[in-house]
Amino acid sequence: MKCTDSIETREVEELFINIDPIQAGGRLTPEAQKAVIAYSDGYSVCDNCLKPFRLDYIRKPPIAQFHEECAKWLKMDQLRVVPGARRGFQAVASSMVSKGDPVVLTSLSHYTEFVSVEQSGGIPVEIPLSENKYITPDAAAGKIEEVIEKFGRSPSLMFVEHADYQYGHIHDIKGITKVAHQYDVPVLVNGAYSVGIMPVDGKALGADFLVGSGHKSMAAPAPSGVLAAKEEYAEKVFRTTQAKGDVTGRTFGIKEIEMMGCTLMGVTAMGLIASFPAVQKRVENWETEVEHSRIVTDALLSIEGTECVSECPRKHTLTRINTLGSFDKVAQNHKKRGFFLSGDLKKKGITGVIAGSTRVWKYNTYGLTRKQTDYLASAFQDVAEENGLVVNRD
Amino acid sequence: MKCTDSIETREVEELFINIDPIQAGGRLTPEAQKAVIAYSDGYSVCDNCLKPFRLDYIRKPPIAQFHEECAKWLKMDQLRVVPGARRGFQAVASSMVSKGDPVVLTSLSHYTEFVSVEQSGGIPVEIPLSENKYITPDAAAGKIEEVIEKFGRSPSLMFVEHADYQYGHIHDIKGITKVAHQYDVPVLVNGAYSVGIMPVDGKALGADFLVGSGHKSMAAPAPSGVLAAKEEYAEKVFRTTQAKGDVTGRTFGIKEIEMMGCTLMGVTAMGLIASFPAVQKRVENWETEVEHSRIVTDALLSIEGTECVSECPRKHTLTRINTLGSFDKVAQNHKKRGFFLSGDLKKKGITGVIAGSTRVWKYNTYGLTRKQTDYLASAFQDVAEENGLVVNRD
Repeated sequence: MKCTDSIETREVEELFINIDPIQAGGRLTPEAQKAVIAYSDGYSVCDNCLKPFRLDYIRKPPIAQFHEECAKWLKMDQLRVVPGARRGFQAVASSMVSKGDPVVLTSLSHYTEFVSVEQSGGIPVEIPLSENKYITPDAAAGKIEEVIEKFGRSPSLMFVEHADYQYGHIHDIKGITKVAHQYDVPVLVNGAYSVGIMPVDGKALGADFLVGSGHKSMAAPAPSGVLAAKEEYAEKVFRTTQAKGDVTGRTFGIKEIEMMGCTLMGVTAMGLIASFPAVQKRVENWETEVEHSRIVTDALLSIEGTECVSECPRKHTLTRINTLGSFDKVAQNHKKRGFFLSGDLKKKGITGVIAGSTRVWKYNTYGLTRKQTDYLASAFQDVAEENGLVVNRD
Repeated sequence: MKCTDSIETREVEELFINIDPIQAGGRLTPEAQKAVIAYSDGYSVCDNCLKPFRLDYIRKPPIAQFHEECAKWLKMDQLRVVPGARRGFQAVASSMVSKGDPVVLTSLSHYTEFVSVEQSGGIPVEIPLSENKYITPDAAAGKIEEVIEKFGRSPSLMFVEHADYQYGHIHDIKGITKVAHQYDVPVLVNGAYSVGIMPVDGKALGADFLVGSGHKSMAAPAPSGVLAAKEEYAEKVFRTTQAKGDVTGRTFGIKEIEMMGCTLMGVTAMGLIASFPAVQKRVENWETEVEHSRIVTDALLSIEGTECVSECPRKHTLTRINTLGSFDKVAQNHKKRGFFLSGDLKKKGITGVIAGSTRVWKYNTYGLTRKQTDYLASAFQDVAEENGLVVNRD
């Protein structure tokens, strides 16, 4: 089936169980799918934009209401929709970081956090990992001390991942922000792998800024996301323009510099908003999601030679697995080489494992039903056995 | 009809002739509507993302191909998709403007251009308008001279509107860039009201940067747009990250700083791409579009007391009209005050005039059929006559 001569219809989510690490939390809800169809045209949300003309003031469709409710839900003071979590990082770095400023990231920071700091002229430094691949409050304190010694001043900002993209570990954000605040360092909590899939309380975490990704974890179209802030920093990151035309004398009202006025003027905002009631509900099922993750991980670990790189038992649906001693051994002698794994899985209706990967790879079980979970777990074991590996079934 | 409990279905484009100034060029094509449905899920375009992992390298769906073809179509060397024209301005300002740099805008510049300059710490100055509301090469030269005198150096960048949002005037970009280049000032041409609706040749215009808006003029969902550059500036604005983790030693490959890696990872890119063949065709019908614009403008001018603020005969589909001497006089004594006009038009199936406006307002006839154009022209005259105004019908 085709959309146009050159664009094939995407049917991945309809035809397969998709365990792609970045796609699992961004599948739309049926409500969002309806909103996407209704609000697909360009500036579709602007029909009832009234003075003072800003996206987050529009009440029909209920964009203003979403801003209020989502801030409240995340226990943060103010919130804006942004074109992806990365644009939230950019807005905060641009507001908080001056040229030459040291900025603390972590050894698990996403490249978009590095790029945000680079764009603002800051100097990124990383908090080292503990042996079991966690960012600890002690390591955070140590890095801040190191910065002070080297730069003669505190870092102007710290980025930490609530759940990181490499291992799916949930870090001690509360402990880290407590330490950072002792040094007066504001903290941006990257919730790209938490906001929208598990309960997140920005206040309890001690977040000064909290960023979520719509297309990664809030069942929304790309690019979308949210940037929330505590009141004292909201003034700074959501500051309004002071520009004035030297000839015309024009000023530009309440347009926010970092938001560039309006951010998501159509389909992306509406998908995010339409999914929001379902997203608020689904985070309450997080324990079940984690249980499904454990079932699949246990099945993979029942294949001799497989190791889980992420901590077990799993506490998140994103998992990094090492199959060098199992699937990769098969790949050495398989006529399809490493492609046998994704190929065999595809035949069983499973997709999302990078084609060719048999060494260290990631999967995300988020959103699978129990039936899909059990099927997926068995499928991994079946592929292993069919290729001569030993599986220790219960 | 509703999408969710709180979101009503948007039916503006199905039920009305919509002459909203910002919405006319962003209505989706049927092809884009199909692509939006197929690619609505979060990271939907990433199924076949291979090394080196960047949006503009993905060939299935044909995102790389679009980048190549659209650059060629606009006669520019390189192009990237961006989350709206404003994010293109931001990327260029962030790359070209340092703190304290004078940057030349115009008296018709959009607020997002001011905000881009402000974010980069530049100092915006405006080229004055000619009496007939045009930006001229002479005025551009004069402003550059003024900057050199005041700041002791040339401006680091100039923004000019190909067609401006206030009057819909098409400016002498070729003449302006020629002048700017004599002073070695690079020029960003804002094509938000030209790219996608009329023929645009970046090379002939002398553009160093050319920005288009997907949701404003390329029949695409929001936020979307394109940023194109000449090779010598592409290196700068599309520079790749040099960041390195001090603990992990990580580097981040070919991720582009200003693009933040990837920009439009789903529905927005696909809508833009799906509409592209139709958009390439439709710009060839520009003369017909302008003819329709003239028919409607002439009808409004046939209402005694009405004046066209934009230059006549019209050369663009966006027009600013002054009805202080006609519809606003009716409003003085009408029980609905200024709301009678939008109300009466709505009864005739026409929307897009800001509710309450009867003084100076804008409309855009882009995309109307001849039949719709004639109907719209008559409707304005009918509303006028029904409210006691004199109409000089041919």
